[in-house]
Amino acid sequence: MKAITLLGSTGSIGTQTLDIVSQYPDQFRIVGLAAGRNVDLLAQQIRQFRPQIAAICDPALLPQVKEAIADLTPQPILLAGENGVVEVARYGDAEAVVTGIVGCAGLLPTIAAIEAGKDIALANKETLIAGGPVVLPLVQKHGVKLLPADSEHSAIFQCLQGVPEGGLRRILLTASGGAFRDLPVEKLATVKVADALKHPNWTMGRKITIDSATLMNKGLEVIEAHFLFGLDYDHIEIVIHPQSIIHSLIELEDTSVLAQLGLPDMRLPLLYAMSYPGRVPTQWERLDLVKCGDLTFRAPDHQKYPCMGLAYAAGRAGGSMPAVLNAANEQAVDLFLREKIQFLDIPRLIEQACDRHHPRNLPQPTLDDILAADQWARQAVLSASQRLVA
Amino acid sequence: MKAITLLGSTGSIGTQTLDIVSQYPDQFRIVGLAAGRNVDLLAQQIRQFRPQIAAICDPALLPQVKEAIADLTPQPILLAGENGVVEVARYGDAEAVVTGIVGCAGLLPTIAAIEAGKDIALANKETLIAGGPVVLPLVQKHGVKLLPADSEHSAIFQCLQGVPEGGLRRILLTASGGAFRDLPVEKLATVKVADALKHPNWTMGRKITIDSATLMNKGLEVIEAHFLFGLDYDHIEIVIHPQSIIHSLIELEDTSVLAQLGLPDMRLPLLYAMSYPGRVPTQWERLDLVKCGDLTFRAPDHQKYPCMGLAYAAGRAGGSMPAVLNAANEQAVDLFLREKIQFLDIPRLIEQACDRHHPRNLPQPTLDDILAADQWARQAVLSASQRLVA
Repeated sequence: MKAITLLGSTGSIGTQTLDIVSQYPDQFRIVGLAAGRNVDLLAQQIRQFRPQIAAICDPALLPQVKEAIADLTPQPILLAGENGVVEVARYGDAEAVVTGIVGCAGLLPTIAAIEAGKDIALANKETLIAGGPVVLPLVQKHGVKLLPADSEHSAIFQCLQGVPEGGLRRILLTASGGAFRDLPVEKLATVKVADALKHPNWTMGRKITIDSATLMNKGLEVIEAHFLFGLDYDHIEIVIHPQSIIHSLIELEDTSVLAQLGLPDMRLPLLYAMSYPGRVPTQWERLDLVKCGDLTFRAPDHQKYPCMGLAYAAGRAGGSMPAVLNAANEQAVDLFLREKIQFLDIPRLIEQACDRHHPRNLPQPTLDDILAADQWARQAVLSASQRLVA
Repeated sequence: MKAITLLGSTGSIGTQTLDIVSQYPDQFRIVGLAAGRNVDLLAQQIRQFRPQIAAICDPALLPQVKEAIADLTPQPILLAGENGVVEVARYGDAEAVVTGIVGCAGLLPTIAAIEAGKDIALANKETLIAGGPVVLPLVQKHGVKLLPADSEHSAIFQCLQGVPEGGLRRILLTASGGAFRDLPVEKLATVKVADALKHPNWTMGRKITIDSATLMNKGLEVIEAHFLFGLDYDHIEIVIHPQSIIHSLIELEDTSVLAQLGLPDMRLPLLYAMSYPGRVPTQWERLDLVKCGDLTFRAPDHQKYPCMGLAYAAGRAGGSMPAVLNAANEQAVDLFLREKIQFLDIPRLIEQACDRHHPRNLPQPTLDDILAADQWARQAVLSASQRLVA
């Protein structure tokens, strides 16, 4: 029985994690839960999974959570605010912490969990993309494991299990191509939010679905792969694979290629991160290669999708530049989702922010440098977007 | 530096093994060589690789080999006949023996190598298909490794490296479909030897190319996979994959699927078996998924290719039945190659032989039972084929 704490319990990753826990109650128990603003769902989760500790990020909502579970005995420790989430992350005997918080907000609690000696089931990309230069030394110092819980990095991680040290030569991240993969480039200028949210294969949160349509998700994954697997950027490639059946591939030193395949179901990489190094038998739907049709591949179009190139450049620049890329992207996507900017403004605003950023303490920024860069980039994109409108 | 002995050095597997050794002289050295009848090539190989011992299977050819290398100093030990090959297999400090002898002739030398404590790079299918019930207990007793050196089983073996004990649920062997994969079933009756030898993807020996056209190669691989990986026959499946890029797949307990991919090049699985558990860096051509086009899959047609069903039935019957299947197939393919029978007579003759065979000492036949069954099956097919002609 593995003791798990879950950050971001009411989001897409969170609810899928709890779906797994409820399916395999003999394998997992929940120590802590932290959510953002969804009081009703958090209360329901506390009722069902009986954590020892829970937190809601918005402090104003704490009384409502208290009231909603007032009848429970024993009561969990109930906390609020960012500090509350950090407290949950480091609490008790949880062996692994699933970090399902979207965006840079996941960084501090993840660091707290690492410092408390807990393995990280990593569903929060920013932990490494923004925090990589700070997080990786901590991971090493505290001897914890970073277990990727998203499908691409989990695929690579699964393939790497039997590979001798130094045997990895190249990573191939597969990309579905997102909502606009078959749209001519000249039509991208006028696409609407609703169009961008129609992901062909995966059901995910809104922010990540837009990242999928700009292919920034793949750019961010390239940076994450760099930190997770230690390859330089020249050896991390993207290939468009519209069927999302091959979740990623690795090429080894002898040219052998290993791949992990499966139906598009986030629960599988989550389950593997939660059960690593074991595997939990499931009766989930099996992949049927004959039914799933032809598997196709094409080279990514960097002209059509400039976000990939921006991500490679930010990754190569290093230091706090990936944090700027990521924060600028979060801000730009938020503006797009609120219909303040056009789809093609997203890469434009990100590029401007990256161009104007001067990383400090290269190549080893402090956490403060990173958080400051993150804040700066958001503000820079906001200001620039207002100039766009004007 | 790994010390290797090579059985069947002048055949397809043998020459590719030596190609690897000559490319990586700092990784491998040759202790022993054994060949069938090709005096000139064996002499040339002895000259180039300077083994300590060598044998030619046909005793009448020994004087010619001696003469061809008379000027060498020091002279290798030179032997002849089946006993000579067995002597080479067990000789000296070779850590691994590559068994590239085609057919049941590979069985006795392989057993000798195992008894001498050497790991086996297994390119000879019959070692397990016919000899499985005898060979596996010896492998366990002497604590040696069976390292598959053909592309499909190597793919499975590579995928299994990081999988926890008991995690394997299903094996998917991919099949190119052979020379007749796009030929309507009603035209199979009249195909010629030359047609059957046109394999779409792989360059292999004549016998194996015919096995590929009947899909018996895949049936034999199912039996081999059963012995190598310990799955029952219900969990070993065949899928037609005309491009031969995915060399095979495994499904794990949690429904995750792992696959090994590569260009169709026998040297890669050979190299992995020779270098296991390490990997040797190569500059061989890399797989380019974008270039290699769509990957397609279809269910195998058991009506069109009855050999697969015969193999599953023989595997399930166990004991000496797979030896009969294999020997009957060898004999029938030989008759087809000599244009004594038609293509569709191959499965007919094999089925008759299996129907008439009464396995002895089930489920644990002796080596004598297996060798007797092998001899009996060859004779049975020969006699039956003469009745066909008459």
